[in-house]
Amino acid sequence: MLLCIVGILIMGRVERVCEMAGYVFGIDVGGTTVKLGLFDLHGMVVDKWEIPTRTENNGEMILPDIANSIKVKMAEKSIVKEDVAGVGVGVPGPVDGYGIVHRAVNLGWNMFNLKENLTTLLDGMRVECGNDANVAALGEMWKGGGQGHKSLVAVTLGTGVGGGIIINGEIVTGATGAGGEIGHIHVEDNETEPCNCGNPGCLEQYASATGITRLANRALKASDKDSVLRSGEVSAKAVFDAVKAGDGLAIEVACAFGEYLGKGLGVIAGVVNPEIFVIGGGVSKAGEILFDYIKPPFERTVFHGCKDAKFALATLGNDAGIYGAARMVLN
Amino acid sequence: MLLCIVGILIMGRVERVCEMAGYVFGIDVGGTTVKLGLFDLHGMVVDKWEIPTRTENNGEMILPDIANSIKVKMAEKSIVKEDVAGVGVGVPGPVDGYGIVHRAVNLGWNMFNLKENLTTLLDGMRVECGNDANVAALGEMWKGGGQGHKSLVAVTLGTGVGGGIIINGEIVTGATGAGGEIGHIHVEDNETEPCNCGNPGCLEQYASATGITRLANRALKASDKDSVLRSGEVSAKAVFDAVKAGDGLAIEVACAFGEYLGKGLGVIAGVVNPEIFVIGGGVSKAGEILFDYIKPPFERTVFHGCKDAKFALATLGNDAGIYGAARMVLN
Repeated sequence: MLLCIVGILIMGRVERVCEMAGYVFGIDVGGTTVKLGLFDLHGMVVDKWEIPTRTENNGEMILPDIANSIKVKMAEKSIVKEDVAGVGVGVPGPVDGYGIVHRAVNLGWNMFNLKENLTTLLDGMRVECGNDANVAALGEMWKGGGQGHKSLVAVTLGTGVGGGIIINGEIVTGATGAGGEIGHIHVEDNETEPCNCGNPGCLEQYASATGITRLANRALKASDKDSVLRSGEVSAKAVFDAVKAGDGLAIEVACAFGEYLGKGLGVIAGVVNPEIFVIGGGVSKAGEILFDYIKPPFERTVFHGCKDAKFALATLGNDAGIYGAARMVLN
Repeated sequence: MLLCIVGILIMGRVERVCEMAGYVFGIDVGGTTVKLGLFDLHGMVVDKWEIPTRTENNGEMILPDIANSIKVKMAEKSIVKEDVAGVGVGVPGPVDGYGIVHRAVNLGWNMFNLKENLTTLLDGMRVECGNDANVAALGEMWKGGGQGHKSLVAVTLGTGVGGGIIINGEIVTGATGAGGEIGHIHVEDNETEPCNCGNPGCLEQYASATGITRLANRALKASDKDSVLRSGEVSAKAVFDAVKAGDGLAIEVACAFGEYLGKGLGVIAGVVNPEIFVIGGGVSKAGEILFDYIKPPFERTVFHGCKDAKFALATLGNDAGIYGAARMVLN
């Protein structure tokens, strides 16, 4: 009986919030710009805009700038505090379950309580915050490539490899805010160069845009095979363009990339057994062809009980962060 | 305000359950015996006993036997239905979030709704169920080596390698009930023999009791070094006894075991960032010396943000399952 009451109250939460407040802000704090979104409670974008990220003096103006921009927008749209269910914020660094940022190097931030600070700057408005990659995963689950699923691993193949894990609709924050840091799982014992994190052999060294470029340069050096990659700039985009054109050496590089990423995702599947992997970031612009290289090593090595995980491309692009940040408030 | 009410109701749940009902049953269904425990709501054992697991005819008598044994115990202790908060059950196979067993080979069970069936047999008493390794992890968190933690990975080094992952006090069941199947994460590309699951190169092939024996036999064959392992039976226990006696070849085997397990746990830490790893199963009887071999490769390869994970030995032994099963009801 008691549980029923709790259940009904929780189930009714979003609807009740709808009655009480009609908007939610989603904020994605990047090293250069802060993306801001104003959403209705169904996830429709009412407005979105950007402000510069002022990182000087340990980023002390970033939160005041955000608070100010929110207040200006509210005034512009004649939205009062009572109309706002809350403000969600994604930041590039570990954030624990209490809203404490442990460090955000790109913003100049050391450890502090973001949730409390921003709540104060916003005169008591509700604030939720999380790591940007985790928050983006929530965005893709809500309105992107992972729609309809509750257990999802989002993989962002950009300059680095980011990850976000959602289990039963909740972000896996981790004990020290480092849950889903899948770019730094160890996948190669014989690597001689260190990753940006300091360790040699991280997934990021082979599956990021930078990693694919590195694999391509190594392949070009190790073989004298003809390849379109020998003329022009070597990049992840160039590699997958060449793969589509049937370039043999580029296909070898794609296979090497796929071996690392496919086996890595197989391990992740064995740990959290997600319904779906959602692949985003710059590299994912290559499209579904990526799956031709990721899936075979995944299927070959993954535990049979976890084999049914789906693969999809992310669809929200750079907006995943503001969507997920907004969604955090509605959780 | 609404959230506060929900919070208070949830926080108060265990206390309210205490007022309403004084007992909970924890059941651990194994291939040979079913372990049963009667607990008070603080986790004190009131009684524990075993019945045989009758696996004939696709294990059709297992649930009726359990229901009957519970009813007999209740009569014996003069416990009425209203005194029982519920019955938790751990089974050796994947169980999804709806209480559906997907398969339990050792019991002869195919897919069916365990939760519904047992509830009916128990005249409507509340039933919760889960995979035995996951349930044992919950037991170790509640009353064992992981006490005081909310995010934990339990690793059982027995005949195979089992795993259970708890995030924020909740079992990670996974999309198809295969969450925490860490024995079957792929850790070796150059393995020629298949694991029991069919894939070659699973963690279980190197970190289980069987795996350690296999590593030892390989080492004995590959070298002509003197070793106490050359006389007597080669087993995981013999290996770690020899390690403690300073046997050079046994130490090499322990290092190989530690490399696989330490790096594997490093990857798992990068995915879910737990507070603590709790190591149990027969192999863990070797004691803290295991950590001397697991920790260095863990620390060398894990992402720095996940480095602080603690390591502890499991303390509940074969009772972890009944504790965890009981705990499920109080969640």
